[in-house]
Amino acid sequence: MGQKSTYSYRVEPQDVDFTLRATLPALGSSILNVAGADAHGKGFGVDALNADNHSWVLSRMAIEVDERPTQYTDYTVATWINEYGRVLSTRNFTLTDSSGREFARAVTQWAMIDLTTRAAVDLSWVGRAHSEAIVDAPSPAEKPRKIRSVEPERFVEHRVVYSDIDFNRHVNTMRYIEMCLDMLPVDSFAREEGVRLDIHFLHECRYGELLRVGCQTLDDATLFEIRNEAGEAAVRASIAWRA
Amino acid sequence: MGQKSTYSYRVEPQDVDFTLRATLPALGSSILNVAGADAHGKGFGVDALNADNHSWVLSRMAIEVDERPTQYTDYTVATWINEYGRVLSTRNFTLTDSSGREFARAVTQWAMIDLTTRAAVDLSWVGRAHSEAIVDAPSPAEKPRKIRSVEPERFVEHRVVYSDIDFNRHVNTMRYIEMCLDMLPVDSFAREEGVRLDIHFLHECRYGELLRVGCQTLDDATLFEIRNEAGEAAVRASIAWRA
Repeated sequence: MGQKSTYSYRVEPQDVDFTLRATLPALGSSILNVAGADAHGKGFGVDALNADNHSWVLSRMAIEVDERPTQYTDYTVATWINEYGRVLSTRNFTLTDSSGREFARAVTQWAMIDLTTRAAVDLSWVGRAHSEAIVDAPSPAEKPRKIRSVEPERFVEHRVVYSDIDFNRHVNTMRYIEMCLDMLPVDSFAREEGVRLDIHFLHECRYGELLRVGCQTLDDATLFEIRNEAGEAAVRASIAWRA
Repeated sequence: MGQKSTYSYRVEPQDVDFTLRATLPALGSSILNVAGADAHGKGFGVDALNADNHSWVLSRMAIEVDERPTQYTDYTVATWINEYGRVLSTRNFTLTDSSGREFARAVTQWAMIDLTTRAAVDLSWVGRAHSEAIVDAPSPAEKPRKIRSVEPERFVEHRVVYSDIDFNRHVNTMRYIEMCLDMLPVDSFAREEGVRLDIHFLHECRYGELLRVGCQTLDDATLFEIRNEAGEAAVRASIAWRA
């Protein structure tokens, strides 16, 4: 059995919004960086997988933040994998400030794809080959929820530009989250309440595509659906504030 | 006379584009962070100025990059002020990799504003009060060029959203640069050539405004003008690739 790994971060000026607190995408970015660094350190990073024409793809993510840390706050991200299924592996995170208080947590689920077909491959072998990397500790939050349907009442269009894309020329994860947050009333971010984000990736969106971001306000959450140019649901998400 | 100050940075995964090299906004971000940290350390940071109801505002910036560093590259930013005028102070930067090779440089010009009127105030007193912070070393590149007029042949519209704004609820500097870069053909970034960016800030753009980003292609450069909802030129910029 493995141990949790920890990484140190600091909330930099480019990480904060108008409240001078870290944005959800900034915290999400450090979470994904930690995932990449830890997989690399344990021998199953994207670099090692690419040699076999495979790669990791983020399928679902849930982030819960009790209180967004202010600019220049130092924090620690702990990460561990506790489950390998045939299709998804589960990687967990807790974010802790320098006094040891946990202020956020995340659960991510990853598929492995064949880079030629971009189809999911069976990843049970990773669990067997790297069983020492599995940590016997429960996920710190409910797993990412599957969002089955969204009936948007409002839309904005978004053309995928250079600044949106990653090394695959697909929209990067944090930009999808920004597209959702940007549909909310800006004063949602002035209240300092806990928030839970669930996001579910169904199709990759490419440079140049015209996306349609829809949003539906429910009593207890706001749902989002980003459709690609072909009209398919590419991303679904839910944001719920918690007093 | 003062000494140059140095700060350490690393190209993180969120800093790179599809070429896996640091973007201009990411390098620009570390440059502005260094400006803030150095001014703070020397006693004339935004925090100290706010006590007198003043603040620094970036008026013009020029960045020259010979080669954009790849992901995980460590680099050092050196900064120094070499001039205080009545209206503008000049802060300089060089960016150096771990082998000591300078791969980028920048010259920025800052005004001091009164936070109530948002008008520029005479800042010669800062030069007198903090003369020990002035470094007798020339700027590492030509000062930011004034871009007097742009005759755009193409436009895109951009509504200012939550993710675009800083603590003043104005569009943050790096988002303006992204708006310009996003008008260029994406393959401009695949060629690895030197680039020089000049950017000139005329009016602050606010949350919710509908901006119009125009671009004009010249033989040796691309010019940009971002107009605010009132139709005023808010930002002008020029990007020139250098073989």
